[in-house]
Amino acid sequence: MKKRYLLAPGPTPVPEKVLLTMAQPMFHHRTPQYSKLLSEVEEKLKHVFQTRNNIFILVSSGTGAMESAITNFFSPGDKVICVRGGKFGERWGELCKVYNLNTVFIDIEWGTAVKPEAIEEALKEHPDAKAVLTTHSETSTGVVTDLESIGKIVARTPAILITDAVSSLGALNLETDNWNVDIVVAGSQKGLMIPSGLAFISVSEKAWKMVETAKLPKYYFDLRKYYKSLQKWQDPFTGGVNLLVGLKETLQMIEEEGLQNVFERHRKLAEACRSGVQAIGLELFAKQPSNVVTAVKVPEGIDGTAITKKVRDEYGITIAGGQAQLKGKIFRIAHMGYSDRFDMILAISAIEMVLTELGYNVPLGKGVAACEEYFLKNW
Amino acid sequence: MKKRYLLAPGPTPVPEKVLLTMAQPMFHHRTPQYSKLLSEVEEKLKHVFQTRNNIFILVSSGTGAMESAITNFFSPGDKVICVRGGKFGERWGELCKVYNLNTVFIDIEWGTAVKPEAIEEALKEHPDAKAVLTTHSETSTGVVTDLESIGKIVARTPAILITDAVSSLGALNLETDNWNVDIVVAGSQKGLMIPSGLAFISVSEKAWKMVETAKLPKYYFDLRKYYKSLQKWQDPFTGGVNLLVGLKETLQMIEEEGLQNVFERHRKLAEACRSGVQAIGLELFAKQPSNVVTAVKVPEGIDGTAITKKVRDEYGITIAGGQAQLKGKIFRIAHMGYSDRFDMILAISAIEMVLTELGYNVPLGKGVAACEEYFLKNW
Repeated sequence: MKKRYLLAPGPTPVPEKVLLTMAQPMFHHRTPQYSKLLSEVEEKLKHVFQTRNNIFILVSSGTGAMESAITNFFSPGDKVICVRGGKFGERWGELCKVYNLNTVFIDIEWGTAVKPEAIEEALKEHPDAKAVLTTHSETSTGVVTDLESIGKIVARTPAILITDAVSSLGALNLETDNWNVDIVVAGSQKGLMIPSGLAFISVSEKAWKMVETAKLPKYYFDLRKYYKSLQKWQDPFTGGVNLLVGLKETLQMIEEEGLQNVFERHRKLAEACRSGVQAIGLELFAKQPSNVVTAVKVPEGIDGTAITKKVRDEYGITIAGGQAQLKGKIFRIAHMGYSDRFDMILAISAIEMVLTELGYNVPLGKGVAACEEYFLKNW
Repeated sequence: MKKRYLLAPGPTPVPEKVLLTMAQPMFHHRTPQYSKLLSEVEEKLKHVFQTRNNIFILVSSGTGAMESAITNFFSPGDKVICVRGGKFGERWGELCKVYNLNTVFIDIEWGTAVKPEAIEEALKEHPDAKAVLTTHSETSTGVVTDLESIGKIVARTPAILITDAVSSLGALNLETDNWNVDIVVAGSQKGLMIPSGLAFISVSEKAWKMVETAKLPKYYFDLRKYYKSLQKWQDPFTGGVNLLVGLKETLQMIEEEGLQNVFERHRKLAEACRSGVQAIGLELFAKQPSNVVTAVKVPEGIDGTAITKKVRDEYGITIAGGQAQLKGKIFRIAHMGYSDRFDMILAISAIEMVLTELGYNVPLGKGVAACEEYFLKNW
């Protein structure tokens, strides 16, 4: 017997009652029952997206929604500005390349956030840019982007602001309308607390105007089809019936807790986690740390992949290692979605024990104490 | 209290024990646990697909896999032959149009199947055709296509044979390798008995050779990414974790029943259903009826949409109406996946009662009697 704990940055744990709700009998997607469900979910999603824009629900992973954010708005050769500072920023870049966009990259050091001024400069230098592509919370580095400031800059230009909020939506404050974020892409398996399988994209009026002239080919992700179906509270293709059932339930949970309280909980869990790892003597990787995932530098001389492997296989806790060039160099503890105080306590405790086992000198209990102290003062 | 019965051609009922298995706690997709699951599912899928080809698992509806069957194998202007005799044949045509293929259509009357000779002729007339696009079971008309004969014809040419088996896989015999079907597209929410959200595509060596030269753009559905990840038993993007958990369970059920027995069950349910509706005095719509869904002509003077609505709202049974030009003119009873004798009995019984209520002269019990007689002789 070994209890399992999921503290990876997605998929995140699904609340037990939601798992059971999702186990209700399947029903057909061309029924009043489904339309009612879809309309309820849409309304609740708009609350979490903090928008009055249309939100389209796709059956895909978040990457599918990212692709739809490219193919529905641009034509080959269109100029876009793309911020690259991690694996998911790179994914925007790969999508732009596949679809032959004229991409101006703002490359930033992994672990840092883009400076809004850099975007302002790029837009001045490229007044013909049609969009700025950003990553709200860069999961690979644990960095959060200042979308509010960037939104103010982009709103003054003809360009639209697109953000990948796959790992942040429902966990970090993202004021889609107030901040003028034209396109927000999100996923089901992170802050929204249901299994992987649904993706979301909200589209402002400014962005929607580009749909009619966009020449890139698309079919399954053609948002005009989703728009047309949504007028009848339907999906153009077979919707993710039981995922939608679960989503209604988790969106209800978010409403009951209160959206601002959800954000505050994530902030406090993140701060506790950061206190904990720093009290052990470890260093944070992100200069502008995100409140959904804490990236920690692996101490000199220790095998980073051994940390995540031992934490998972011997202690039952799934955290994440580093991706791409960060493989073995960082580990990442998620506090995203269905996450509470003791998730941080047990993660820090496991790190203390595993580092000790790996021969790194750790003052046992010191990280946990820092978490406790934080919670006593701030929870 | 009204018990609900799902007899629509997808999503189909998910077995209760599978719903509960899928309610197990979420786990991470970059773990040995997930890789083991994926490798087991792959092996079992190959058994159901009756193939040694690679099968790629996509998080999308079946249409996403249809799109991947176009974008991964062709370049703009490539010539393909497309059979169109229903809504899903038309979907192939729409995909070809969006991606600028040079499409030769074989248009057949809705309710009939394409004659293999028509494909032979088209291939002779268009020796430069790179593919033949077919629909194994055309859900909108309830027609089955003779893929075995078509496979023999196409195999003698450089063209590949592509089939949409979304509603047939795991329900109708489809000998992918023996019949030389190069690309088979399938979905999770039909014969495979799990919720909507996963799609599948199997690719022969003959077809895979076309991948390297295909110039159509793709990213999320880029099968080269899936191929590369599959070598490490991974998905390129976040996989459908709990759907895969369910799929392993339903594939196990299919194995235990025996694949041939599953096909035989579908054949017998279909024959019983057809006997039932004909005994009431109704006419079948399909000239070559499929064993997964029975399309029935609505009698003269009766409102077809009222039949499906009353059957659903008053009797609790979801069947399907007609789509597109068949709206109001046919209704469709599915016998697909988790379906047994009394599903047919209750469907025919409901039709008897509803037609009576709508003023159509039905000999009550006669359709049910025909089903019973069939089962007594053949089950």
